[in-house]
Amino acid sequence: MLLKEIRSPADVKKCSMRELTALAGEIREEIVATVARHGGHLASNLGAVELTLALHYVFDCPEDKLVFDVGHQSYTHKILTGRLDGFHETLREEGGVSGFPRASESDCDAFTAGHASTAISAALGMARTRDIMGDDYHVVAVVGDGALTGGMCYEALNDAGQSGTRLIVIINDNEMSISHNVGALSKYLTGLRQSRSYRAFKRGVRRGLERIPRVGVPVFRFVEKFRDWLKTPFVDGKFFDALGFRYIGPVDGHDLKTLIRIFRRAKEDREPQILHVVTVKGKGYTPAESHPDAYHGVAPFLVETGEMRGEKNASCGRVAAAELAALAENDIRICAVTAAMPTGTGMEVFGRAHPERFYDVGIAEEHAVTMAAGMAASGMKPYVAVYSTFLQRAFDQIATDVCIGALPVTFLVDRAGLVGADGVTHQGVFDLSYLSMLPNMVVAAPRDVRDLKRLVRLSAEYDGPMAIRYPRDGEDLGPRLGTHKSLKIGEWELLTSGEDVMFLAVGRMVQAAMNASIELMQKGVRAGVVDARFVKPIDEETLRQALDARLLVTAEENVLSGGLGERVLAWIAEHAPGHEVLTLAVPDRYVEHAAVESQLRQCGLDAHGLAESVLARLGR
Amino acid sequence: MLLKEIRSPADVKKCSMRELTALAGEIREEIVATVARHGGHLASNLGAVELTLALHYVFDCPEDKLVFDVGHQSYTHKILTGRLDGFHETLREEGGVSGFPRASESDCDAFTAGHASTAISAALGMARTRDIMGDDYHVVAVVGDGALTGGMCYEALNDAGQSGTRLIVIINDNEMSISHNVGALSKYLTGLRQSRSYRAFKRGVRRGLERIPRVGVPVFRFVEKFRDWLKTPFVDGKFFDALGFRYIGPVDGHDLKTLIRIFRRAKEDREPQILHVVTVKGKGYTPAESHPDAYHGVAPFLVETGEMRGEKNASCGRVAAAELAALAENDIRICAVTAAMPTGTGMEVFGRAHPERFYDVGIAEEHAVTMAAGMAASGMKPYVAVYSTFLQRAFDQIATDVCIGALPVTFLVDRAGLVGADGVTHQGVFDLSYLSMLPNMVVAAPRDVRDLKRLVRLSAEYDGPMAIRYPRDGEDLGPRLGTHKSLKIGEWELLTSGEDVMFLAVGRMVQAAMNASIELMQKGVRAGVVDARFVKPIDEETLRQALDARLLVTAEENVLSGGLGERVLAWIAEHAPGHEVLTLAVPDRYVEHAAVESQLRQCGLDAHGLAESVLARLGR
Repeated sequence: MLLKEIRSPADVKKCSMRELTALAGEIREEIVATVARHGGHLASNLGAVELTLALHYVFDCPEDKLVFDVGHQSYTHKILTGRLDGFHETLREEGGVSGFPRASESDCDAFTAGHASTAISAALGMARTRDIMGDDYHVVAVVGDGALTGGMCYEALNDAGQSGTRLIVIINDNEMSISHNVGALSKYLTGLRQSRSYRAFKRGVRRGLERIPRVGVPVFRFVEKFRDWLKTPFVDGKFFDALGFRYIGPVDGHDLKTLIRIFRRAKEDREPQILHVVTVKGKGYTPAESHPDAYHGVAPFLVETGEMRGEKNASCGRVAAAELAALAENDIRICAVTAAMPTGTGMEVFGRAHPERFYDVGIAEEHAVTMAAGMAASGMKPYVAVYSTFLQRAFDQIATDVCIGALPVTFLVDRAGLVGADGVTHQGVFDLSYLSMLPNMVVAAPRDVRDLKRLVRLSAEYDGPMAIRYPRDGEDLGPRLGTHKSLKIGEWELLTSGEDVMFLAVGRMVQAAMNASIELMQKGVRAGVVDARFVKPIDEETLRQALDARLLVTAEENVLSGGLGERVLAWIAEHAPGHEVLTLAVPDRYVEHAAVESQLRQCGLDAHGLAESVLARLGR
Repeated sequence: MLLKEIRSPADVKKCSMRELTALAGEIREEIVATVARHGGHLASNLGAVELTLALHYVFDCPEDKLVFDVGHQSYTHKILTGRLDGFHETLREEGGVSGFPRASESDCDAFTAGHASTAISAALGMARTRDIMGDDYHVVAVVGDGALTGGMCYEALNDAGQSGTRLIVIINDNEMSISHNVGALSKYLTGLRQSRSYRAFKRGVRRGLERIPRVGVPVFRFVEKFRDWLKTPFVDGKFFDALGFRYIGPVDGHDLKTLIRIFRRAKEDREPQILHVVTVKGKGYTPAESHPDAYHGVAPFLVETGEMRGEKNASCGRVAAAELAALAENDIRICAVTAAMPTGTGMEVFGRAHPERFYDVGIAEEHAVTMAAGMAASGMKPYVAVYSTFLQRAFDQIATDVCIGALPVTFLVDRAGLVGADGVTHQGVFDLSYLSMLPNMVVAAPRDVRDLKRLVRLSAEYDGPMAIRYPRDGEDLGPRLGTHKSLKIGEWELLTSGEDVMFLAVGRMVQAAMNASIELMQKGVRAGVVDARFVKPIDEETLRQALDARLLVTAEENVLSGGLGERVLAWIAEHAPGHEVLTLAVPDRYVEHAAVESQLRQCGLDAHGLAESVLARLGR
């Protein structure tokens, strides 16, 4: 059977073992070709091909629930559940197939995902529903070893283990988060992988017994049982035992026969169990297998060589990291923390310069923030670099552990605003709100990389909690915008004047507002632009000057609720009641995957959209 | 030496063993007497007396850093670090000693706490600071076994274990969270406690060797070493080993000599280590020892009998739980989830009625929310009952796992608004903002328990994410306020009319606004009141009617940023530009412990404060 003939998981079950093996090859080609064209998550998906084939061979979707953690390993699942064409043509494109599991996309996607470490919790919820409703389906959570560094996994294991309910957790262990995995548990898993009995198991079972099918199966079963009885200290699952789970593994995650056998046996058990499956990230595509971190999430590339296509703007994260590394030369207190994102946040640049002051704590944003608070409380000046959407995980730690004590922790909030192809789960459109509602917090967003550097320098001198939020890519808008050499906390900047309208724009919206003002000029509307780079505190003096214009227009890549616009409204209501304000922001709905430019347009936050909104408000 | 002679930790070190034992008795009397008078956390603090004495006997505060998790066990520490008088006179009172560790209160409080599971993270931060700065102090985190159910602890252990840095984590294991502890790890700890060798250890060492001091010490050391070598499957620390920690224990947490010996040895080690200390919650005060959950956090009581003093208002949580339990009689989909707070949230009422649909997941708010999302995604109608301040922990899970899919999870947000004596770390003044900024979320707050019941009934029919937030205690304001029998989503209620001013008040502010309107009437200002019970969506029709009054006044027990006031401002800016609005809310600073009434007054949110603000705005 060929891949294009697989229209649903039922078709997978009709395949012979030989056909499954052939399918695995076809799927890999499909994934490489599609990601080469659309960008996406490559290495993690290449590692989970056989695992997913075996899952669909053994379990019955959508009756059985497969919950993929994050979804960096869900492409094969998408391909096998009737979405091959959509995957091929539209992956991560506007209106197309999402790069993550989406319940709204297929009834085979049991749970919408995108943030790490949620699958066991969601799966336990489904298992409990099943138990209450008297149903009998299976629930399987597929979790990467990287996601296991997140505390939520442990909370869920602790609860599930005690509940005793039937639940299968598959650890897809490829020794990586996005970058190389960290943490003590990672070493523990390595210990399990490298154990003598695992190697014996592989040698004995895979190379030997499978070649003699009739004898092989019973002998395999015997060996397997023997292993269970004889759990040695070298390969025990004590960690998972302590959490109430039955541990089975490790098994070779590219060996279809073994996977199918293990999964079938798992269906028989009535207790919570962990299946430890070892895979190779990037499997089958040499560039990805050799550099799995570089090929984790990729832009379009050339299949033949793996060479990435297209030119890149400056990475804001790398700019911030470089600036910080320079400052750290003369300030031993400066250190940096990231949560499994040394490459994504650009902080590896800092890490290379100051490895002894650089901490990758794993996918553990909560711990990252409070650990940094502990450092700040004892005299350091820590910087926490996390994506805007993932920093949501640490909202309470920022509020309680950092802001109450006004500790000097600086947040470098990357991927802020609309993020493009990663879509709905990854939008960074809440941070201005959840950060600026907290007492003692300073919240800033630079208009370009030049401004970003200035803000980083300013933060180094500031003795309190501060957040600097920026998108992935930045440009240098050049000195033509403003002349400020240095900055003060809460300082806005009047860039151009206008008698009719004054934009109060923040971050990427500054350039959009500049362009909008040109468009408005052509319609006879004189619009000026203020770079309102501090969302908190706001610059009351500049705001007062801005009142010279009849209409104030706030523009921000953030929801309206709790953002710059409402903060300006609150100030106006108190100090200049009656003055008209138009607030332009991300609307109150989740924004789906598309190009950033398109998402901005959808939200009316491109230059033309800003101009149109102003004209509409002015009744033109 | 007597307790009153202990002015600093240095004095503890001068004590003989006999004096330490006497001190322990005095401290217990002091804690019981003070908590009986002021209320506070009793049982947990009684359990940690010897533990804390031994810590101060061995370690040097403030050079060495003691980080108490949550702080439900920090009273002895406060008493021994120069705060006996303040503790005795002013515990939890306005301007007095806080019930939690506060860095601003003493340099011996290494880290401000109040939320669970943060101590290991903060302590690791301090240990890393020490390593970078080339210092040599000790860092000790004291964590309850309850707090260990929080995922942050695991994230921190995973990071610390790999780091290999010198760090001492003491598990104060009393088999309880606030209520009886849950989770598989709790069973694991029980296994360690009940192990043969632990019992032998206790019998052999405590009863036997201590009576013969000269021989006892070397024999003790031998036995101890022997235990380390011979770690049997019955008492291994494999779980902690896997996380890179050296496990030592369990030891009797009321045996001063043993504690001191263990702590001294711990100071010698250069690796991360876990000391498992077993204590009895409520130790030494019979009522608390017999009912440690009832005496966890208490109002003032009679020392002789343990009888609680004062009458209580209705507990909103219990009212909501009872209503929900009744609805669940006819709807099998309704279930309830709490995070280690069955008593505090009142959800035990539901749990008794429907034990098979009630889940206490431990101090694990993140997991609680996503587990509920999993239940909702598979056909259940889950209710998550968590305190407002602790729900901050699950902000990302609400945003990503619940709201993107618009899953029908209802949040029963208890202890919302200003909370009184628990103070700054426990204020529930952000929830209206962090919840209403999320697409698809409905946010409501009842004015009284009658309204709360109606909202619970409404939520049962509503097929989407919803939050109902309320303070601890509620009253029934009676049918004189309004006549609505049933509610619709987003429906406000005009209670009284007024031509000059219209209050848009939410929750407890409705009654305050009613009283303020009477006060204003006496000054010739005609003020009406709208119960703006839905913060999202707002009731545009009623809001439009309210424009008949010259001045709109929003009143909410929440920060201004992102709350009701700004939402109204945004609507006004769009639909009725120029209309005057006065926004009254909790100011942008952390509100310290005091009586709720005083906190409201400080924030200008008592009836008189509301009236005064209105008069000031009107220039009267």
